[in-house]
Amino acid sequence: MRNFEFLSPTKIIFGKETHKQVGSVIRSYGYKKVLIHYGMQHIKKTGLYDQVVESLNEAGIQSVELGGVQPNPVLSTVRKGIDLCRQENVDFILAVGGGSVIDSAKAIGMGVPYTGDVWDFFEGKAPEKTVPLGVILTIAAAGSETSKNTVITNEETLTKRGAAFDCNRPVFAIMNPELTYTLPAYQTACGVVDIMAHVMERYFSTERNVELTDRLCEGVLKTVISNAHTVLDEPNNYEARAEIMFSGSLAHNGYLGLGRTEEWVAHRMGHEISAFYGATHGETLAIMFPAWMKYVYKHDTAMFAKFFNRVFDVEYDFFRPENTVLRGIERLEDFYKSLGLKTRLRELNVDPSLFPEMAKKANSRGKLGNILKLEDEDLVKIYELAY
Amino acid sequence: MRNFEFLSPTKIIFGKETHKQVGSVIRSYGYKKVLIHYGMQHIKKTGLYDQVVESLNEAGIQSVELGGVQPNPVLSTVRKGIDLCRQENVDFILAVGGGSVIDSAKAIGMGVPYTGDVWDFFEGKAPEKTVPLGVILTIAAAGSETSKNTVITNEETLTKRGAAFDCNRPVFAIMNPELTYTLPAYQTACGVVDIMAHVMERYFSTERNVELTDRLCEGVLKTVISNAHTVLDEPNNYEARAEIMFSGSLAHNGYLGLGRTEEWVAHRMGHEISAFYGATHGETLAIMFPAWMKYVYKHDTAMFAKFFNRVFDVEYDFFRPENTVLRGIERLEDFYKSLGLKTRLRELNVDPSLFPEMAKKANSRGKLGNILKLEDEDLVKIYELAY
Repeated sequence: MRNFEFLSPTKIIFGKETHKQVGSVIRSYGYKKVLIHYGMQHIKKTGLYDQVVESLNEAGIQSVELGGVQPNPVLSTVRKGIDLCRQENVDFILAVGGGSVIDSAKAIGMGVPYTGDVWDFFEGKAPEKTVPLGVILTIAAAGSETSKNTVITNEETLTKRGAAFDCNRPVFAIMNPELTYTLPAYQTACGVVDIMAHVMERYFSTERNVELTDRLCEGVLKTVISNAHTVLDEPNNYEARAEIMFSGSLAHNGYLGLGRTEEWVAHRMGHEISAFYGATHGETLAIMFPAWMKYVYKHDTAMFAKFFNRVFDVEYDFFRPENTVLRGIERLEDFYKSLGLKTRLRELNVDPSLFPEMAKKANSRGKLGNILKLEDEDLVKIYELAY
Repeated sequence: MRNFEFLSPTKIIFGKETHKQVGSVIRSYGYKKVLIHYGMQHIKKTGLYDQVVESLNEAGIQSVELGGVQPNPVLSTVRKGIDLCRQENVDFILAVGGGSVIDSAKAIGMGVPYTGDVWDFFEGKAPEKTVPLGVILTIAAAGSETSKNTVITNEETLTKRGAAFDCNRPVFAIMNPELTYTLPAYQTACGVVDIMAHVMERYFSTERNVELTDRLCEGVLKTVISNAHTVLDEPNNYEARAEIMFSGSLAHNGYLGLGRTEEWVAHRMGHEISAFYGATHGETLAIMFPAWMKYVYKHDTAMFAKFFNRVFDVEYDFFRPENTVLRGIERLEDFYKSLGLKTRLRELNVDPSLFPEMAKKANSRGKLGNILKLEDEDLVKIYELAY
């Protein structure tokens, strides 16, 4: 086990009706003026927006709003938010939405007190201070509600970049599984894939002595898999929605990676597909993860066999362990398909002639891969396996 | 799943050599004068005490010290600590030790700014403010390093009581598994039992829809069980010590109980044995848990069968599920014995005529038990099963 430090100060407020507490929660921290940040019109249609404003009003909290955050949130919206917060002297950002809205809110929070360009933080600079944020979560997927991560797309350069700083962890995360009932099946499925991917990126590690976190990862994955079809078949099943939402937070708050190396190859490769084609993050992961596994598993067959045996109940083949892995990858792809998702790049009409450029961009901040260091040519081969 | 709130702000600093950072860590929070609180002379013999003082001196932090905390920490030492902190204007308490030292430090932290008697906090009063504390952990067991709990014995009344407040969570917890190498086998074994008990008290719940935390509990227990004999056979095995230490913290920081009811019957019944006989906490749990299980399992055979099947690999008996439980309880007792621990009250020379008094005291703050509400007579029967 490697040495590590961990801090997760986000207060979790989980359960039915909890979003109605938001005003009094913000008041308890002493904040006065809030930017309500959200996505498309969905939260206005469902009445959530009105409930939030009512709760803020009751608590005597002033607010301004900025909607319009898209999936794969973009830098131009972040810049708008920064300007608005400065003009209005906002001292707290309330993200009402899923990962895209929360990530956008984190970027705004970094940008407001900074005199330079906010994109600097996505090129490696660390923020000195930020405007703090809180979350009302409406999509179980990104785990951004308790994580230190934000991912933003710069539309001018078609570059999708992540930044991770402890100061970006939300002050609180209100998680009411009922708010995810109205989520379309496709987004629900993409969320399931995203949550699983956050765990798998940490599970596949070069560190051997990490039994506790191995077993925690396996537990989260089994929970998500066992509840995935329930939330698709019965969108209003509170208990299944709660298991998925709770899992989504633990999957990405950092705990499952403690003491380990992490991979993040499938994520980075998927980001390039999103940057070029605007593809949904979860769908790119359903495509890239099996392809990545096919390419690298031979470099640690035992670990992949353990994964598929414990998580997907593939019977272990003691004499030909490799078969455990091959049968497992099939099972993983079948699982993604059963959620209604595409599992090949050709289904997204991706142009294979772009693979070398995508590979180069994915590798541009240091070569990907710990299990196997991946050259640009390796990434091209993985894209080809995914095609 | 029940609604819940959760906050775990303790910064975890985990790994080799990490205790040498303590001075700079405390300085980073701005504290000036520290009470070093510890147990018997062990940390002076091993050189840990000198390393701590050196690190504080280098960081320019002043310190005073109070040692002498016993296992089952007592109120008189807490009172001494309160007086000393007031006299010396201490603004931070550094607990160097295991659960007893940390619990004593938490009690001192509550008592210093309070004008009444510190025992009030063990009778239900909530503290308004506290002197904050940090931890250098030397025993993996109590989980007090990241928990909100403290348990203190009032020697005058032979009463052992717990108090749980979020403001008692340490600011930081430095966890270096190397510091546990010198722990005697008996204390190591008691720690293993204590960690398992913290998980089991949460696992046996009346709440059915708690799949994620069920699986997390199972993962922690399997990790502890699989590393228990390694740490006894090879006290200097870093990786096994690290798994146990990391598990001990997760077992009791509260996360595994989120959304659930919890039991705590074996703990409370064990506390009475400690209060009357000074018995080691872990050993009382090895005795009380199997007895409690024998008495209550019929009220939820499915849950106990799931536990023994998943955690102890007892093959599930589909036609007679009860047999899974009975075989499991035997396996649990065998496991405790294999750690070198006693599993019967008679081995501790407990006088059975005290059972009614112990039962009455254990039930004095509300009747124990959620799976089954336990009258005093029930508790006496459980003590008899444990005899």
